[in-house]
Amino acid sequence: MNKLFAIIVFVGVPFVLIGAFLNWPEMIMFFLCCVSIIGLSGYIGRATESLAIVSGPRVGGLLNATFGNAVELIISIFTLKAGMVGIVLASLTGSVLGNLLLVLGLSFFAGGIKFKRQKFSVHSARYNSGLLIFAVIVAFVIPEVFSMTMNPEKTLSLSIGIAIILIALYLAGLFFKLVTHRGVFSSTEEQENDTEKEIPEWTKGKSILILLLATVVVAFVSEQLVHTFEMLGSTFGWSELFIGVIIVAIVGNAAEHVSAITMAVKNKMEVSVEIAVGSTLQVAMFVAPILVLVSLFMPQSMALVFTWPELVAMITAALLVINVSNDGESNWFEGLTLFAAYLIMGIGFYLL
Amino acid sequence: MNKLFAIIVFVGVPFVLIGAFLNWPEMIMFFLCCVSIIGLSGYIGRATESLAIVSGPRVGGLLNATFGNAVELIISIFTLKAGMVGIVLASLTGSVLGNLLLVLGLSFFAGGIKFKRQKFSVHSARYNSGLLIFAVIVAFVIPEVFSMTMNPEKTLSLSIGIAIILIALYLAGLFFKLVTHRGVFSSTEEQENDTEKEIPEWTKGKSILILLLATVVVAFVSEQLVHTFEMLGSTFGWSELFIGVIIVAIVGNAAEHVSAITMAVKNKMEVSVEIAVGSTLQVAMFVAPILVLVSLFMPQSMALVFTWPELVAMITAALLVINVSNDGESNWFEGLTLFAAYLIMGIGFYLL
Amino acid sequence: MNKLFAIIVFVGVPFVLIGAFLNWPEMIMFFLCCVSIIGLSGYIGRATESLAIVSGPRVGGLLNATFGNAVELIISIFTLKAGMVGIVLASLTGSVLGNLLLVLGLSFFAGGIKFKRQKFSVHSARYNSGLLIFAVIVAFVIPEVFSMTMNPEKTLSLSIGIAIILIALYLAGLFFKLVTHRGVFSSTEEQENDTEKEIPEWTKGKSILILLLATVVVAFVSEQLVHTFEMLGSTFGWSELFIGVIIVAIVGNAAEHVSAITMAVKNKMEVSVEIAVGSTLQVAMFVAPILVLVSLFMPQSMALVFTWPELVAMITAALLVINVSNDGESNWFEGLTLFAAYLIMGIGFYLL
Repeated sequence: MNKLFAIIVFVGVPFVLIGAFLNWPEMIMFFLCCVSIIGLSGYIGRATESLAIVSGPRVGGLLNATFGNAVELIISIFTLKAGMVGIVLASLTGSVLGNLLLVLGLSFFAGGIKFKRQKFSVHSARYNSGLLIFAVIVAFVIPEVFSMTMNPEKTLSLSIGIAIILIALYLAGLFFKLVTHRGVFSSTEEQENDTEKEIPEWTKGKSILILLLATVVVAFVSEQLVHTFEMLGSTFGWSELFIGVIIVAIVGNAAEHVSAITMAVKNKMEVSVEIAVGSTLQVAMFVAPILVLVSLFMPQSMALVFTWPELVAMITAALLVINVSNDGESNWFEGLTLFAAYLIMGIGFYLL
Repeated sequence: MNKLFAIIVFVGVPFVLIGAFLNWPEMIMFFLCCVSIIGLSGYIGRATESLAIVSGPRVGGLLNATFGNAVELIISIFTLKAGMVGIVLASLTGSVLGNLLLVLGLSFFAGGIKFKRQKFSVHSARYNSGLLIFAVIVAFVIPEVFSMTMNPEKTLSLSIGIAIILIALYLAGLFFKLVTHRGVFSSTEEQENDTEKEIPEWTKGKSILILLLATVVVAFVSEQLVHTFEMLGSTFGWSELFIGVIIVAIVGNAAEHVSAITMAVKNKMEVSVEIAVGSTLQVAMFVAPILVLVSLFMPQSMALVFTWPELVAMITAALLVINVSNDGESNWFEGLTLFAAYLIMGIGFYLL
Repeated sequence: MNKLFAIIVFVGVPFVLIGAFLNWPEMIMFFLCCVSIIGLSGYIGRATESLAIVSGPRVGGLLNATFGNAVELIISIFTLKAGMVGIVLASLTGSVLGNLLLVLGLSFFAGGIKFKRQKFSVHSARYNSGLLIFAVIVAFVIPEVFSMTMNPEKTLSLSIGIAIILIALYLAGLFFKLVTHRGVFSSTEEQENDTEKEIPEWTKGKSILILLLATVVVAFVSEQLVHTFEMLGSTFGWSELFIGVIIVAIVGNAAEHVSAITMAVKNKMEVSVEIAVGSTLQVAMFVAPILVLVSLFMPQSMALVFTWPELVAMITAALLVINVSNDGESNWFEGLTLFAAYLIMGIGFYLL
């Protein structure tokens, strides 16, 4: 797996560079950028992981919680810079749907094929489901409904207020999980296993260097990627929504998808759920509000107002996942149900 | 009970026949058809039950899962043939509401009057609630919201896609319940009781004969019934919605209603819940999508787009039932709550 | 605490009286009325408590369940009399949001700072969450959605029907909790503690006298308060919604807020939850429907149709609280989550 990522990066990135200078056709550039970003995400993930281990659990948790969706944040900032607010909101939606339905669905399914029942912490599931309702159902629905009878200026004020509250609660949640209620979330068995394996892949210095380098390269490639979005729309007839919800979201999260499913097959369902749902919460409570705040310095500011199809897809996905995961158990059929929901939404966004 | 059904059928059906030839007033025909269908449903139910026992648990489960709502399917096909798409969607809604709120409510209430607390499998409740959210909240809401910004052609494509996914997941669910996770759902006590009683009422041949005969007669009576719908509207001032949601749904499900409540009073709450919620899932995941596909060969095709009152009634009913049943326990007050919700919706559809 | 209430009442009420005769500026009157009502609520609460103890648990429960929101009912009736239907609906919304998010949030937070985990009865949580879904999601949503395609007359008929069903189910719920399923809800430990402390503060006669007196004075002060609402709008630019949802709701429920939080800090989370959620249910299932019925004799009748922001705020609040409290445990972070949701909604209503 790691070798594959290395090949992808060391072949893909130079080609993106050459292509950018020679103005290669956007079709080819789109493909090269996507592949390179997936490879680079793998490096960022491994560097973060190594750094997290050497920094101890608290700082490590914080690192994972902030760098976990770095790639997505970078792509979104360049998309914002290009003034494509609609694609940013769509890709946030796509991240939420992709993590909740596609990643969790495939993890439950792949794991469930091998094991009859897989368990994960009920405490963690409850913490996650409370925040899912808070973020997706309270914080995303309120501006949507209230903005219907508000002028755009007030809608933006409301969005800024909500963004600050989301970030504050996200940080408080980290404090809760890593400090005041540490150890409540993972089963003891899990913890022991983890301590045995905690050997970092890279040293502290090497990790930081790779993290910085990969981030810079991702930023460059993302900028190239964003330029190809308009072409995608005109060539394939794909809508902004479909590009954001399905394409950008899958590219931006591919590395996480692979590791979540790998963990599920190893019966470490605890980790799979943490990657999938944790990443969703990070997108909804950290990446999305930061983008709202960043957009204030951009040509076009972004209110936290999704389209109705996006919002309804996220709400229904959240309700489905909460219901399916609340008992701390999974099986292949629950995975298939989540995947089927993703399929329905995918068809919907494609036809829209 | 069985004698009553026999009298109803052997008196009612000939009268429907005579009435159809002599063009009796529609008022009388409506009453005769309703009564005959209720009686015939009883026969279909018993024939399916007998066949299920002789065929063993797997094929039996499959039989129950496909013939359980045969009557409803037949009435709906004739209604589709008459081009009354609105009534078909309304009767699907009515089936969902009737099963979830009326049948389950009366079962909980009647059982709860005799027993302080009644228990049923938590696993089964969770399986059901996951699929309820999938069917009612994901699969029904998505086309509703997405169709607001889609042309009718794309809406129909989306409906067809969702219909296929619903049927596929329904079949996968049967495979899950009957093959890979058999035995997980019913408590061991229940299973032992069941094996003792498994004596079929009729032989295999007799069951198949009765099933075929009753189905043909139901088809004939249904066609007569559908002809009376227009009169109902003009005579009583009932809307299409009210006829579908309340009248057709009660007639089409009467036989199941009786057996669910009977089981609850015998403290076999497991079976009651299975009849009520299982039948809801069958309607939502099997009957409804099949009708969408069948409608493609009919004068007017049917997209899976309900009216907002119908959709909202189903969503709120599903959320209420999931919340009330998730603990695997019931009492009379929970039953009354479900019944009160049905009453509110009934008044709403009557006034609409 | 009690001394403070005494000072407030015996200083505040005479000033309101003098102000009313001398036509003091509405700004000052608004402040005086609010303070006096908070003080008087304290007296009504203590008188009800004393009466409840001497009357035994059943009649006591009934007393608490009917007089618990007496102050709110009185303010609302005077607001109805002044024809401000919008403010009444807004203050009902505010009561629901205030109790569910602010009171419960602060209770969980304050209690959670002192204790790592606090427990309360799971049975009680389930009973409450079932009724929350029934009241807020079924009984409030149905008229909202159905009224979109109904004339105002039919909407009022539907509201009256729902009001009667809500009151009937509320009374049935009391019968369930106090008679048929008494003892199921509180843990045995709790019950023993309670029996020790059950010494009424005042005698039966004194309690009734204080209850009557305080109610009459609240009525008088409420009438003065209602007159100041128009000024609030024009002076501060506050909307009807904000006055109702935030200001009236906080004044009308202040006494309960204090006692819920006090109980949480004493680790009697059972009582806190009962005050917060019990009060919500009382408002939704008893106060709101009674106001609908009372409004029929008023200049302007009140249908049970909220504005969309009000309804959506209540629905999302209910879903969040149900999810957070369903496990019968609380911690400071859950409290903070509820409080953050209140803050988001408060900003929303302020900007609206």
